[in-house]
Amino acid sequence: MDTEPSANDLETFASRHIGPQSHQRDAMLAAIGATDLDDLVAQSLPAAITETAPLELPPPLSESEAMSRLRDLAAQNRPGRAMIGLGYHGTVTPAVIRRNVLEDPAWYTAYTPYQPEISQGRLEALLNFQTLVADLTGLPIAGASLLDEATAVAEAMTLARRTTKTGSVLLLDADTLPQTIAVVSTRAEALGLAVEVAEGDLLSAVRASDPFAVVVQTPGASGRLAGTDELRAVAEAAHAKGAEVIAACDLLALTAVTPPGEWGADIAVGSSQRLGVPLFYGGPHAGFISVRTKLERSLPGRLVGVSRDVDGTQAYRLALQTREQHIRREKATSNICTAQVLLAVTASMYAVYHGPRGLAAIATAVHGAASALADDLSAGGIEVVHEAFFDTVLASVPGRAAEVVRAARESGVHLRLVDADHVGISVGQDATVADLTAVRAAFPVGGDPTSSGRSRLGEVRTSAYLTHPVFNTHHSETSMLRYLRALSDRDFALDRGMIPLGSCTMKLNATAEMEPISYPGFADLHPFVPAEAATGYATLIAELESWLAELTGYARVSIQPNAGSQGELAGLLAIRGYHRDRGDEQRTVCLIPSSAHGTNAASAVMAGMSVVVVKATHDGSVDLDDLKVKVETHHDRLAGIMVTYPSTHGVFEEGITDLCALVHDAGGQVYVDGANLNALVGLARPGRFGADVSHLNLHKTFCIPHGGGGPGVGPVAVGAHLAPYLPGHPLVEVQGAQGQGSGPVSAAPYGSAGILPISWAYIAMMGGEGLRSATQHALLAANYVATRLAEHYPVLYTGRNGRVAHECILDLRPLTRSSGITVDDVAKRLIDYGFHAPTMSFPVAGTLMVEPTESENLEELDRFCEAMIGIRGEIARVKEGHWPADDNPLVNSPHTQSRLVADEWTHAYSRRLAAYPAGLHAGPISARGSDKYWPPVGRIDGAFGDRNLVCTCPPPEAFED
Amino acid sequence: MDTEPSANDLETFASRHIGPQSHQRDAMLAAIGATDLDDLVAQSLPAAITETAPLELPPPLSESEAMSRLRDLAAQNRPGRAMIGLGYHGTVTPAVIRRNVLEDPAWYTAYTPYQPEISQGRLEALLNFQTLVADLTGLPIAGASLLDEATAVAEAMTLARRTTKTGSVLLLDADTLPQTIAVVSTRAEALGLAVEVAEGDLLSAVRASDPFAVVVQTPGASGRLAGTDELRAVAEAAHAKGAEVIAACDLLALTAVTPPGEWGADIAVGSSQRLGVPLFYGGPHAGFISVRTKLERSLPGRLVGVSRDVDGTQAYRLALQTREQHIRREKATSNICTAQVLLAVTASMYAVYHGPRGLAAIATAVHGAASALADDLSAGGIEVVHEAFFDTVLASVPGRAAEVVRAARESGVHLRLVDADHVGISVGQDATVADLTAVRAAFPVGGDPTSSGRSRLGEVRTSAYLTHPVFNTHHSETSMLRYLRALSDRDFALDRGMIPLGSCTMKLNATAEMEPISYPGFADLHPFVPAEAATGYATLIAELESWLAELTGYARVSIQPNAGSQGELAGLLAIRGYHRDRGDEQRTVCLIPSSAHGTNAASAVMAGMSVVVVKATHDGSVDLDDLKVKVETHHDRLAGIMVTYPSTHGVFEEGITDLCALVHDAGGQVYVDGANLNALVGLARPGRFGADVSHLNLHKTFCIPHGGGGPGVGPVAVGAHLAPYLPGHPLVEVQGAQGQGSGPVSAAPYGSAGILPISWAYIAMMGGEGLRSATQHALLAANYVATRLAEHYPVLYTGRNGRVAHECILDLRPLTRSSGITVDDVAKRLIDYGFHAPTMSFPVAGTLMVEPTESENLEELDRFCEAMIGIRGEIARVKEGHWPADDNPLVNSPHTQSRLVADEWTHAYSRRLAAYPAGLHAGPISARGSDKYWPPVGRIDGAFGDRNLVCTCPPPEAFED
Repeated sequence: MDTEPSANDLETFASRHIGPQSHQRDAMLAAIGATDLDDLVAQSLPAAITETAPLELPPPLSESEAMSRLRDLAAQNRPGRAMIGLGYHGTVTPAVIRRNVLEDPAWYTAYTPYQPEISQGRLEALLNFQTLVADLTGLPIAGASLLDEATAVAEAMTLARRTTKTGSVLLLDADTLPQTIAVVSTRAEALGLAVEVAEGDLLSAVRASDPFAVVVQTPGASGRLAGTDELRAVAEAAHAKGAEVIAACDLLALTAVTPPGEWGADIAVGSSQRLGVPLFYGGPHAGFISVRTKLERSLPGRLVGVSRDVDGTQAYRLALQTREQHIRREKATSNICTAQVLLAVTASMYAVYHGPRGLAAIATAVHGAASALADDLSAGGIEVVHEAFFDTVLASVPGRAAEVVRAARESGVHLRLVDADHVGISVGQDATVADLTAVRAAFPVGGDPTSSGRSRLGEVRTSAYLTHPVFNTHHSETSMLRYLRALSDRDFALDRGMIPLGSCTMKLNATAEMEPISYPGFADLHPFVPAEAATGYATLIAELESWLAELTGYARVSIQPNAGSQGELAGLLAIRGYHRDRGDEQRTVCLIPSSAHGTNAASAVMAGMSVVVVKATHDGSVDLDDLKVKVETHHDRLAGIMVTYPSTHGVFEEGITDLCALVHDAGGQVYVDGANLNALVGLARPGRFGADVSHLNLHKTFCIPHGGGGPGVGPVAVGAHLAPYLPGHPLVEVQGAQGQGSGPVSAAPYGSAGILPISWAYIAMMGGEGLRSATQHALLAANYVATRLAEHYPVLYTGRNGRVAHECILDLRPLTRSSGITVDDVAKRLIDYGFHAPTMSFPVAGTLMVEPTESENLEELDRFCEAMIGIRGEIARVKEGHWPADDNPLVNSPHTQSRLVADEWTHAYSRRLAAYPAGLHAGPISARGSDKYWPPVGRIDGAFGDRNLVCTCPPPEAFED
Repeated sequence: MDTEPSANDLETFASRHIGPQSHQRDAMLAAIGATDLDDLVAQSLPAAITETAPLELPPPLSESEAMSRLRDLAAQNRPGRAMIGLGYHGTVTPAVIRRNVLEDPAWYTAYTPYQPEISQGRLEALLNFQTLVADLTGLPIAGASLLDEATAVAEAMTLARRTTKTGSVLLLDADTLPQTIAVVSTRAEALGLAVEVAEGDLLSAVRASDPFAVVVQTPGASGRLAGTDELRAVAEAAHAKGAEVIAACDLLALTAVTPPGEWGADIAVGSSQRLGVPLFYGGPHAGFISVRTKLERSLPGRLVGVSRDVDGTQAYRLALQTREQHIRREKATSNICTAQVLLAVTASMYAVYHGPRGLAAIATAVHGAASALADDLSAGGIEVVHEAFFDTVLASVPGRAAEVVRAARESGVHLRLVDADHVGISVGQDATVADLTAVRAAFPVGGDPTSSGRSRLGEVRTSAYLTHPVFNTHHSETSMLRYLRALSDRDFALDRGMIPLGSCTMKLNATAEMEPISYPGFADLHPFVPAEAATGYATLIAELESWLAELTGYARVSIQPNAGSQGELAGLLAIRGYHRDRGDEQRTVCLIPSSAHGTNAASAVMAGMSVVVVKATHDGSVDLDDLKVKVETHHDRLAGIMVTYPSTHGVFEEGITDLCALVHDAGGQVYVDGANLNALVGLARPGRFGADVSHLNLHKTFCIPHGGGGPGVGPVAVGAHLAPYLPGHPLVEVQGAQGQGSGPVSAAPYGSAGILPISWAYIAMMGGEGLRSATQHALLAANYVATRLAEHYPVLYTGRNGRVAHECILDLRPLTRSSGITVDDVAKRLIDYGFHAPTMSFPVAGTLMVEPTESENLEELDRFCEAMIGIRGEIARVKEGHWPADDNPLVNSPHTQSRLVADEWTHAYSRRLAAYPAGLHAGPISARGSDKYWPPVGRIDGAFGDRNLVCTCPPPEAFED
């Protein structure tokens, strides 16, 4: 027998993560003409950048070992009871929602709902979220979530800037959350916008300044609740100056107090975390935004709307979507792509489950407990600073604040140490009598922690909210469970089949990676606990950052950016900071190849740069000649270049090292977008082949699931010379940060810390060899698909030896010209075959981009290839005139159940062909079609919905025929 | 404001568990003509048994509080590393299986697959299990699981007894697991079968005795692995005497050694726990049984077989099913109803995921580690008792065994203290290098814990196993996840809609009840750890038993029985023990009403009693006049009566107190079957209205999910005079047990301990008032359904004021006579409407029994009533001749997708009517039919499958047309 340390080490995690078994791998290699995986790499990747030394990572852990280690790390954190507030509040996630949303692969492995016909479930959940936000804020249009509260305020700022004609400054309430002030200041500085924090009374400050927008935090960071009259006066004064009013608010409080829409706010923003979303040490949480009428078409982020399908059925889809996939490059004012769908769904389901009465009861209890505490503090001779508050009591204890906070901490309660003289106590839904007793004992004061004090709310809310039936039906767990299942059943996610996108890496999100995020030590920690209460996270983050640095060849990594877009911004701000520190303030030109993702240009604009586009050659590569011209033209003003590698065309461009050298020689920095890192890990490292900075997408390469459209994590990795410019945080000394860098880009010091265990586990379980093998298998799969489909669809771009990288672009344009069948038709017909569509028309209109990833096995790859070949045959029949151009299985796809069992069938092709295009084989049940995924609606008319914008739950009557 | 201790107490768990909201409850009360819930109870329940005093239970906990308490209890247990063996082995549950089977409501809320058309997923999983067992044991037919290894041996004993003509004694290998010997002895004693444990060499014992069956444990409890020659010789000697050979074996070892079917065993039994099923402190685990040809029709428990549906599609269903629903009453030799489906599915998926090579590798590693340990012990001068072993090393340490065990325990490893001189060390899949190091240090010996020793197996297995593609395909997690999802999607469970059974209470299985069973402190504990390592369980079990005693009005409860059938047996053995101790050995007559469930009679036979049936009156009640006659006839021989209350007819019989008095007066004991306890909890208590003993079904009344057909838990509750006869255990001092009672009925001291947190949480969160309210709502729902349907279908039996209890029987017989439409047709047509069928033809042939439970809300109850009314209309159209008797939507139901999208449609009714009988309403997507559940196969021909019995996975070729 061989030496085997223990049986559970026998099977490597890598063998579970990588789809093809060894005999399948060999068959695939034979099919593409490579002798082994190393040969394929040698054929594909430029020798100049290929690394052969093994990665310096710890040896791989088994699933048990990794989970055991993570359990230990979680146990080192001390969540206790979080009563710190500042935008993060204790809550109770209903178990039925935790298990059947947050822990359910049907929800968390879904992609962004760009294909609405197979995304109706999460689109309905997001419409519920929008209705929740619109109702509670009293503003008619709400978006489908933003990244967090701080960035939501920043987005509101730029929205206001582009919709107001007057004003020169963003005026912030002094009681705004400190992390919001810091994030907004970072953003504003780069954009050249002035920010002013009101000193003292906001109304006076409005009158004394020249604002284009005014931000009111209510309740304030200190807990203070401004009266409605006061808020109304601020809004009127701001409006009198032509400024927009942005209310940063609390959804739970809004069940009890007059909503922003009723006192004059134009925009409301905030976090929906306290609606059942775990604290997660700061994220991910769904930020929200809602706006008054007329602003809806300027709303940043995604917006779900109601439209209709080809049969006239009401159907949901992303509205006004052209804003997003084609972020307006040089003219962009937002670079947001990712939303926080999984968290928005969670918060919306919390509202569905509790309903308006339940939410009001929770708010009443929270406020009652805070009021009773205030009464008891006062009775004990301790000054309560604010007369009006919702959940947060600010206590004045001159010189004793640290002592009080320490005493509470010893009883397991984290309070807010405001300064030497003040303690903040924020009551959440999860506070128990024991906690409230411990708080009293910490001061110490007496009193009855089970009592409820007199209301301190002032004017209370009178308008109704959440009156739609969906918020008044599913109040038993049985009903809730079925609603969740019914919605998730309408959607196609990785748990049903391949999602062969090219724009996102849709690989396995392993359960062993996912389980630890539910451990209470990770899930229930407040981001502003003292360092000694977060040592488990500190270790995890340090290890993850160091591993990512090793994988990318950079000196330092910050995991703060909670989306790729924020990672890009952070990276560009680092470049900006670097040039400015060297006196090169004029270096503001950012070169961007024409094939780049729109976000790149948008991020450059956000970082205060001007975008200059570099042309592509006929083979899709960056035109190095044009690059030379542009570099020369902008020589002294060159900030750098942003380039994706391998390119968005799915090719390892040979010229990458020359490109880097050209830009460096001109004093520019090289930014390599890490979107396609899944083609590089273990084979080549941007930090070693010439790049200065990259952002990564942990939700692509490192297994954080897409969650139906978020959360994402977009760490930024830099060379040593850029390390001083990584993001810091105003409240927490970010580990390893050298100074405050370029200011924070996310509200929380470590961004979406709560999901970092996923990527940690992935790297820990794969090890260096496993990661390298995964990359090789990703290249193998893409080349296999390209090879099998090449005779049916031209592969638009290839690199050396005719190889693609980890994805390939199938050119439909000749077929469209000759048959009239479009990429849309092919994408929708793939649904009938049981597939999610590839990426459509990006980066080249009229094409499909396919990225199979390493996790799909040969059976599934072949099933996909056969579907594409079958569709090619169908296109041929249209070309040949066998089927009319306007009545064939392609243009009528996807086919719904209800159409197929209609009594009448008038089409030129059969029902069976429509339903089971791959045939009904003899064989076990699965081959007989019963496992087929059915789209709940037919093809959706997006334009109709955009013309008739409905972005909250339509009343039941609206569905009447 | 009211006094509210904390916000998370605001909503009671009861309000989530109980389906109807208060306005719905009021509407239902109005519809049935009751002023309030108390009025309904007063109308229904005999006043003589109604209790009004509140239950003495702790105040209800919130979900958070209950889970926090359970987390604390789990943390009090000390699982460490279990290396005790004795039938329970450390294993690693793959996370993808834990999350997507054990923690997935689609799997755990499913009912027993009596309706095969909507159960194809779990039937396929069970067929995989049968194939796994058949392949590994080398015997052709395996059952779909038994309760545990010990009862499996007992079942094998009775199987052998009824299939052999000769022999007088069951001869047990001396190395049989001690709990098996105890359970078998308990069973045999009651049945009057002689049991002999071989002293010394088994072959000599066979030659010296007169066996009807011989049980060989291999490997033995001591770890000893008999050689194949030795086993073959035993089998030959036994066969020469006409005896059957029963091999109690280990599935993991069978990947490496010659299987029982190849050395002559007739029957193989054991536990599949070590294939990925958590230790669970002893259960639930799936026992297994396989048999040689000719014994298949005598197999106890359930058997899945392959048949075909009406279209000729291969389809799975329970085979030879008449054996089960109608357990042959007085002639019964097994009372098994429940299987361990959820655990059998888990074990089968472990095999699917690892495949034959993976299982062999695990076995090799386990054996290698054990062998290396033996080498190191020998090298260290410690005698290893057995030369041949698989995973268990028996070390001789004269006088030092306790010291060695203690030393290991201090390093977190539990070893087996065999006696003062011997220590057993069983290596499981989960043993780490650190554990193996700790074991060496405990003796102490040196050596290399990472090494693998020479093989001690002797003759190794040469035959192939698990060659079917299903065991060789899903080896990546992506593929595994999709397979699990595809299977569960084929099934209808509580997560999709109501399961309105009458034979089982299918209520909510709340997530907060389910989550704690995954806590490592509960999941990973070995049943034979010392008491100090199981204090959390001790507290949980003591509380649960005391709460159940309070709820039922009895003095004592034992939760050992791991199924209702075992609870019945335990209860009847208590009666038997009581009579015998009083010298009344002749009291062996058990009266059973004609309406009783077949299991009652079977259990009585198993307890050594003879069954006398008591007639029913025309209204379905027990005929008290006939009872008097029977009591008089059997006066001195009367052991007792078994009666279900409320009756299996769903009625609160007024005569219950008279019945109890009659039997008591004759010296008999009253056994009230707790199957219908969901109609009594909080309203009346059997222990107070005259019964001496009951068993409960925690999987009915107390929220343990059905798991697709098990696990169940069937505690037995007794009056003080029967307490001394509750089950004990040979290895563990069962808490509260007074002596060894009647011997154990389950292998583990606390039966299915691992799922007891579910019922604990239910009672803890509901509290006394909540439980009472649940019962009232269950009565309300049943009376609501009865009232709404009465004009369409006669309700067969009612009690006082025309009220039913918690269920009602709809009499289809008149309609069947007039229309030809059968209960089968109605049950299958309900699938088209999106429902699981009610219980068919039990307790009265030709009827449907409906139990809606408290957890269904009014929307779902109405949807069900409307479906039944719709079906009544369809029957009318058949009667009227509108549709032919042999071609109408009822006889052709259920309708599959593939039939409905067939190009031809020749039926007398439309496709749309077939598919969407409740109509396609205008409205949101859900009303448009896209959420419809589709059965994967059409109506199944059970008889065909029974004639052509196929009970393992058919080869792919078998599916060819």
